[in-house]
Amino acid sequence: MDLQHDAKQIIDRSLQTVLPDAAVRRALEEHPIDRGATVIAIGKAAWRMARAAQQVLGERLKSGIVITKYGHSEGPLPRMTIFEAGHPVPDAHGVEATRQALRLADSLTQEDVVIFLVSGGGSALFEMPLEGVSLEDIAGITRQLLACGADIVEINTLRKHLSAVKGGRFAERCAPARVLAIVLSDVLGDPLDSIASGPACPDSSTCQDVKAIIARHHLRIPDHVLPALSMETPKRILNAEHIVTGNVRALCSAAMREAAALGYAPLLLTTTLSCEAREAGAMLAAMAREIRASGNPLPAPCAVILGGETLVHLRGNGRGGRNQELALAAAAGLSGLPDTLLFSLGSDGTDGPTDAAGGMVTGEFASACRARGLSIEASLANNDAYTLLKEMGALIMTGPTGTNVNDLTVLLCR
Amino acid sequence: MDLQHDAKQIIDRSLQTVLPDAAVRRALEEHPIDRGATVIAIGKAAWRMARAAQQVLGERLKSGIVITKYGHSEGPLPRMTIFEAGHPVPDAHGVEATRQALRLADSLTQEDVVIFLVSGGGSALFEMPLEGVSLEDIAGITRQLLACGADIVEINTLRKHLSAVKGGRFAERCAPARVLAIVLSDVLGDPLDSIASGPACPDSSTCQDVKAIIARHHLRIPDHVLPALSMETPKRILNAEHIVTGNVRALCSAAMREAAALGYAPLLLTTTLSCEAREAGAMLAAMAREIRASGNPLPAPCAVILGGETLVHLRGNGRGGRNQELALAAAAGLSGLPDTLLFSLGSDGTDGPTDAAGGMVTGEFASACRARGLSIEASLANNDAYTLLKEMGALIMTGPTGTNVNDLTVLLCR
Repeated sequence: MDLQHDAKQIIDRSLQTVLPDAAVRRALEEHPIDRGATVIAIGKAAWRMARAAQQVLGERLKSGIVITKYGHSEGPLPRMTIFEAGHPVPDAHGVEATRQALRLADSLTQEDVVIFLVSGGGSALFEMPLEGVSLEDIAGITRQLLACGADIVEINTLRKHLSAVKGGRFAERCAPARVLAIVLSDVLGDPLDSIASGPACPDSSTCQDVKAIIARHHLRIPDHVLPALSMETPKRILNAEHIVTGNVRALCSAAMREAAALGYAPLLLTTTLSCEAREAGAMLAAMAREIRASGNPLPAPCAVILGGETLVHLRGNGRGGRNQELALAAAAGLSGLPDTLLFSLGSDGTDGPTDAAGGMVTGEFASACRARGLSIEASLANNDAYTLLKEMGALIMTGPTGTNVNDLTVLLCR
Repeated sequence: MDLQHDAKQIIDRSLQTVLPDAAVRRALEEHPIDRGATVIAIGKAAWRMARAAQQVLGERLKSGIVITKYGHSEGPLPRMTIFEAGHPVPDAHGVEATRQALRLADSLTQEDVVIFLVSGGGSALFEMPLEGVSLEDIAGITRQLLACGADIVEINTLRKHLSAVKGGRFAERCAPARVLAIVLSDVLGDPLDSIASGPACPDSSTCQDVKAIIARHHLRIPDHVLPALSMETPKRILNAEHIVTGNVRALCSAAMREAAALGYAPLLLTTTLSCEAREAGAMLAAMAREIRASGNPLPAPCAVILGGETLVHLRGNGRGGRNQELALAAAAGLSGLPDTLLFSLGSDGTDGPTDAAGGMVTGEFASACRARGLSIEASLANNDAYTLLKEMGALIMTGPTGTNVNDLTVLLCR
């Protein structure tokens, strides 16, 4: 079969394995539940994760709460209460749903197990301020932090200390019940305390850190908020266990398996790619040339695989996304190489503000562009990869996939 | 032994193998000369290459001509005439030396062999305009081409067609003698027709191409130059053979051997790295993290090796070079990784406008900077890697090495 066909098969099958349903099912098969279980699902994929859990658990499901973004529920689920709420800005519906989840948590005993299903967006959707604090207080302090150039670690430290569920406090509320957190990670490197602000994960930041941040940035904290900031977050959590799944590593592993099944020796370079998109494309093109010239780093047929999330510094005003730019930049360097293909796509099916998931190019792409009077350089200079790739039929269109575990980039040499 | 020690050993021994002397000696051992030979050596490394050839040939050396840059001769050599000339701008001394080389070429018979030693700078040092054309004519046309944004291919096409030695014309003049060209390549990918403008390499550009370039850019060509431009360059050369040596591939191969000898499994990613320096650093740091996290692309102890020549887009006004920037950018991403080191250096011993060859950083570098109140980010923002690396004792100082085969970058994980 041809390279394009192989690429499409790798894309389709790899994405399947990281869909929320498949990820939850696999996790529960590997960690069987031997008793009645309570499900709390938060995030944009909460509904699908909850449905998968319900299907696996069957009669073992006691009750459940699902908190997802407006429009993301696909209907009622047996024994589950479903809430939709605001994202990315938390709203009163989210707070009310979170309050119900905490009420459920408070009712649990040592005999109970909570299956806590976490996906992207959980930080906004699963939120209840500590007593005496309002959502507006949190928003105001966040605005001050952003205005004075505080970093994300500082912002998260304040947020965790103002929340009744973040920074491990949710798991603490579930005790003495056991919590099995199944996490779809959309954060590179899977730092558990960052994903949804770590509701089931001990917090390493202290009240001391909070004071230092307030002093450093001269924050104005309303008097009624101060008591909350003097309460320490949990530093040890003994009743929670995390399974990270459906993450970019799982996506890359699936791509390796699929490539190998098609006869390409797979080489995983990294799952935390985070450099400028077009430079990653140039570097991969240089690797492709080396594979052709000397069989290093490994001889063809081979598949070089990367996961992560590259950056684009906008210089023009065209249309595109980081995956489309990466692919287009690679196309210039791949020019003239036979039997060589590179694709890059966002696992959510949406690359930048476009309807494409990414782009796919071959060694013949650059000369085909020249033959049609299209300039790769001009397109890149204007950040307009979408227009050129569309014209050349080189966009990857998957539609929304229902998951978001960062990007997958694969170089195929046959 | 420690990582730093291993890195230094890899650097020292790899550079040794690509020194002009060693490269010529190896080439002549692999292609033994069975008769009297004439040596023509051009370029910045011409003297050292000629000396090595003279030592290997001994009594088989009939005569020779060396054309190198002012100050690059290290004294007389037996049976050789040594010329110094202008570089990068060709001058009358270079033309006179080239004239003598052509006179020697004209005297050769079918029984003769020319050992043609080519190194960087050869294009300026080895030049004689075609009859009726002057150096000033060539300079004037080059200026016009640069002013109207012509690309390097177009410039070289004109230059080859105006020269009595470039574009294969030197080898043609040597016929019926055989020419063995030993080329120290400083051009990525070793395109033989580009190195020193290919005096012994058939030229693919035609008089037709020349006319098209003149028309496209509305060049003003003096009437007395036109006859030269209607003479075709050689399209087939049957009396010349090329050995490319002492190039970046040889440098990388040597680094692989040395790393393996020290117990690191080597992985060569590319010999044509040419992306933005700091982005290459970031990507290698992401690979280092993957090696630590999952043992991909290969488990430690390992050495990931790259050759090439990265770019720096200046944004600040500090001191540094592309290798120093690459290393410093990597340091941020390597932060906290144990037993991990990355170095990058220019094989000529001079990285950018500094006295350092490059930089060497470890997983402890970033925290050591913080402890001393030094900011990697601020240093990169100002293109001031030299100052920070010097302060931290992380510069690689080799002094001028006597060769120039691009850069070597190595990630060591123990």
